[in-house]
Amino acid sequence: MYALLESINSPDDLRQLDRKKLPELAHQLREFLINSVAQTGGHLSSNLGVVELTIALHYVFNTPEDRVVWDVGHQTYPHKILTGRRELMEGLRKPQGIAGFPRRTESEYDTFGTGHSSTSISAALGMAVAAQKTGSDRRSIAIIGDGAMTAGMAFEALNNAGAMDTNILVILNDNDMSISPNVGALTNYLAKLLSGRLYTTMRRSGEKMLGVVPPVREFAKRAEEHVKGMMTPGTLFEEFGFNYIGPIDGHDIDVLIATLKNIRELKGPQFLHVATQKGHGYRPAEDNPGKYHGVGKFDPSNGCSIANTGKKTYTQIFSDWLVDMAAEDRRLIGITPAMCDGSGLNAFAEQFPERFYDVGIAEQHALTFAAGMACDGLKPVVAIYSTFLQRAYDQFIHDIALQNLPVMFAIDRAGLVGADGPTHAGSFDLSYLRCIPNIIIMTPSDENECRQMLYTAYRHDGPSAVRYPRGSGPGAVIQETMQAIVIGQGELRRPGSKVAILAFGSMLLPSLQAAEQLDATVANMRFVKPLDKALVNELATTHELIVTVEENAIMGGAGAAVMEALQELGLETPILCLGLPDEFIEHGVHETMLAECGLNADGIAAAIEKRLTK
Amino acid sequence: MYALLESINSPDDLRQLDRKKLPELAHQLREFLINSVAQTGGHLSSNLGVVELTIALHYVFNTPEDRVVWDVGHQTYPHKILTGRRELMEGLRKPQGIAGFPRRTESEYDTFGTGHSSTSISAALGMAVAAQKTGSDRRSIAIIGDGAMTAGMAFEALNNAGAMDTNILVILNDNDMSISPNVGALTNYLAKLLSGRLYTTMRRSGEKMLGVVPPVREFAKRAEEHVKGMMTPGTLFEEFGFNYIGPIDGHDIDVLIATLKNIRELKGPQFLHVATQKGHGYRPAEDNPGKYHGVGKFDPSNGCSIANTGKKTYTQIFSDWLVDMAAEDRRLIGITPAMCDGSGLNAFAEQFPERFYDVGIAEQHALTFAAGMACDGLKPVVAIYSTFLQRAYDQFIHDIALQNLPVMFAIDRAGLVGADGPTHAGSFDLSYLRCIPNIIIMTPSDENECRQMLYTAYRHDGPSAVRYPRGSGPGAVIQETMQAIVIGQGELRRPGSKVAILAFGSMLLPSLQAAEQLDATVANMRFVKPLDKALVNELATTHELIVTVEENAIMGGAGAAVMEALQELGLETPILCLGLPDEFIEHGVHETMLAECGLNADGIAAAIEKRLTK
Repeated sequence: MYALLESINSPDDLRQLDRKKLPELAHQLREFLINSVAQTGGHLSSNLGVVELTIALHYVFNTPEDRVVWDVGHQTYPHKILTGRRELMEGLRKPQGIAGFPRRTESEYDTFGTGHSSTSISAALGMAVAAQKTGSDRRSIAIIGDGAMTAGMAFEALNNAGAMDTNILVILNDNDMSISPNVGALTNYLAKLLSGRLYTTMRRSGEKMLGVVPPVREFAKRAEEHVKGMMTPGTLFEEFGFNYIGPIDGHDIDVLIATLKNIRELKGPQFLHVATQKGHGYRPAEDNPGKYHGVGKFDPSNGCSIANTGKKTYTQIFSDWLVDMAAEDRRLIGITPAMCDGSGLNAFAEQFPERFYDVGIAEQHALTFAAGMACDGLKPVVAIYSTFLQRAYDQFIHDIALQNLPVMFAIDRAGLVGADGPTHAGSFDLSYLRCIPNIIIMTPSDENECRQMLYTAYRHDGPSAVRYPRGSGPGAVIQETMQAIVIGQGELRRPGSKVAILAFGSMLLPSLQAAEQLDATVANMRFVKPLDKALVNELATTHELIVTVEENAIMGGAGAAVMEALQELGLETPILCLGLPDEFIEHGVHETMLAECGLNADGIAAAIEKRLTK
Repeated sequence: MYALLESINSPDDLRQLDRKKLPELAHQLREFLINSVAQTGGHLSSNLGVVELTIALHYVFNTPEDRVVWDVGHQTYPHKILTGRRELMEGLRKPQGIAGFPRRTESEYDTFGTGHSSTSISAALGMAVAAQKTGSDRRSIAIIGDGAMTAGMAFEALNNAGAMDTNILVILNDNDMSISPNVGALTNYLAKLLSGRLYTTMRRSGEKMLGVVPPVREFAKRAEEHVKGMMTPGTLFEEFGFNYIGPIDGHDIDVLIATLKNIRELKGPQFLHVATQKGHGYRPAEDNPGKYHGVGKFDPSNGCSIANTGKKTYTQIFSDWLVDMAAEDRRLIGITPAMCDGSGLNAFAEQFPERFYDVGIAEQHALTFAAGMACDGLKPVVAIYSTFLQRAYDQFIHDIALQNLPVMFAIDRAGLVGADGPTHAGSFDLSYLRCIPNIIIMTPSDENECRQMLYTAYRHDGPSAVRYPRGSGPGAVIQETMQAIVIGQGELRRPGSKVAILAFGSMLLPSLQAAEQLDATVANMRFVKPLDKALVNELATTHELIVTVEENAIMGGAGAAVMEALQELGLETPILCLGLPDEFIEHGVHETMLAECGLNADGIAAAIEKRLTK
């Protein structure tokens, strides 16, 4: 079934193949990919879209000596399969298995770890400069999607690269869809380029070109002129100093190879515009690429999901709340940086389209855009993952907190995230947000508390954040009526003796379970900032040991907040801080990962007992 | 001397003036500005460049109802003078005086606080949306420099705004110079636009246009067509969905007013390209705009600086080290995001131009660009201010630390910064960096230690940072020979009893002074990460009180690191953490500001005594 594919154990093998065999290889690779992801879950649509491009790149370029950097690396499954990891695909994203993103430690073909988008041009440019300085003539290639191109960082890199004389090739993988449908002026511009008759002309001429076989150099020169002549002059990318080539059909392997071979001989910054289709070659994914962006296990014959549906996720709790709140308050505006579906904004976007803003992959802009709205009487709610909020840290400090503007944040995926691994973990938000003056940070311990905290944050006249984990909570009954929580007030959840566990957010449930074993007191702290110092005082003066538990780095996190309060109060009660260790935690199963960090009931109880017997 | 200027106490007064009087007003305003800044110090060149533009904006638009957002707001002195703060200019940037940047709390004309660059389009777009939603027809105007346009954030905002139907006007104040000379493809593109004969044509036609006075509407339409007809079609900004108008002469007040009046009547996103000259109208500043970007007191008659020069600043220590290190190691690359002078890279850039990279105002790109270099054998040194590193937080985590790449950071302006105030304070870096795995953070306590730490960081095979304050240190003798410090090792500096002060960086000197009063032990901790836990252990077990002192937010800072170590060690020694309070600290004099935070010798001693008598 995969005879040809199975003969390819490295790009060297690939480069031995007759070019005529490549379409068959693409076919087998695509079949393998579908069946593999059907077993493991993972990203599908984007990978199906780059099957031919991946083959062509490794066929034409001398990888790993030539550096190929895949932007937002969830599109690297074909790359992994062709670079000696075919048999490891069954362990994809599983504990101890290969990662869902490129990783430098995993393979020499993974030149740069990419999980967040829009970093590839910068990284490839750095490599191109390094090649220059070290006298190497290897090539640096960034493959970036049209969605990722909307991020300012990509623009910064283009602006810098276009004015430098390095041999960098930027390949725009234009499939007109990031995770959410793309937005913005750039998208319109690209659509214009693609819709022109030039595109179809190019396809035909590409086929024609392959009929003749002149000496390579001359061919390259002629083909380049040919391609260039067909293009409208002065495109946006040429203004940036790049030599723009394209658009070409990203599923026509012959055109890809011919074009890449030509480009390989050109000096200076090159920009190749490749049109691909997400989900290409698999009907269910072609019809619904969004659904197949990231999938669980499914039946490859019909695309039906095998995943079971369970409790409401925190994302859904937010989604429901947002719709309810928007119905009550016309000032509410929902903002997402290209994560409409992931952040739970679909229902809101459908019911209140005129108040929904997807700004593209543009976290920095998203926050300051919200700040501008807040200046003039609107109530913006920014829905964002913890890991992506890192992209807008300065804007949080400088534009929102410093001006004390009422912008509210719904921070999803706070804590560990399972199969996506360290690039997507939200391990640091409590640490990096807590030091910012003027802000309020809440950590819901269950679904209903999440809803009420969202309401509390929304009503607060200043910057506020509710941070909640990936997945579902303990399954609390949700109270329809919204009721604000008193700012800065935690609650005692279990009276006990000797040991007081101060639990934050998702850690309340395992803390309560651990407390049963120990007869410990448990408080649901609710607020990381402002911290309930009265409660800390009370518990510290009536217990022999304070234990803090949080799903965030211990360093600078909620536990540090409690210690700061203790020193301020002049209390010397012994304290034990539990949370994420000072390391990047590999992908795995969320529950297992927490257990390995000692953040389940048994782990918490054991840590406390160990501390007590010290 | 300033009779006309003194009659303007608000934009309403300005709008009453006959248009013919405006050039005289511009003249007086410019004179006033020069004399005022000569007294107070502050930003000069950029303000001289926008005198006419500021007058024209307030003359044409109905401020403050129309929203004017000045990017990187050090260009708002004329704006402040015309909006009722003329007499307050003598207190500019002084304690209790008006700020050097726009501040929402200072005036209703300051619509958005801007201190970091490239935020204005996002903020103005937010305001434009708010106007739309609340049924107002007020205008939103962003004035952004060509330097600020290189930041990705500006691109994100353009991309978003160009695809939206709001009445936003973006004015590009093109003076071809941010703080450092601009770089990148965009700069080349703008130069092309400006150098075309169109510009001179426009100036002449602008003058001509003013000869005729047709009904406003019709005039607007005709003038718009006129302007548009002269432009090359399909400019970059038009590709982004903006209606591009210009370039026009930003010092010709009549052309400015005519054009702005026309634009005021147009719907949808407008983009006006204005050419100005930094330092315009003041010869010393015209000749050397960089020198007059930010100045101390000077003699207005000849531009000579009155400021006294003192000890070497930390910036100079870094500057010297960088040149020495670069001479020793060819792999060294120096990278700055548009702060060549401020970060002390001038000497290096001059001596090693081929290893110097000014990437423009593009912090995100700067870091990942460095990461790419580090992948392939170069040794990048990123010189950056603490406050601007906030712009690249995700790249630090995701691209550098997670991949454990040897990128070194020289973090300048860490701690309070004096007259620039809270937008430029580096109050948070220890908190936001400390939680990141794999990194090393050092805090030099004097000039020589700074040099040796830079060397230590450079040699370290992983991410590292040396963070040092603005200005000069205690004046230590600098040892030419470079010698690495043992990673993670602090040093005992003064033996004492009962109280052990753990000082970080700039706080060592006042801690030593305080210790004299108290006979306290003092340690120079050197490393915030990895913390010298052995030293913490030793001091905690031999003293009655541990005191940490740092020039960083207490929340999550170095003190929190010490508390984390104590709880890990299971020690219950009482602790007192001194550092910056949980608030944004207003501009003032660095020393006074520190004293007000209790971070001088007396303050430290007093805090300790208070704690001891508790």
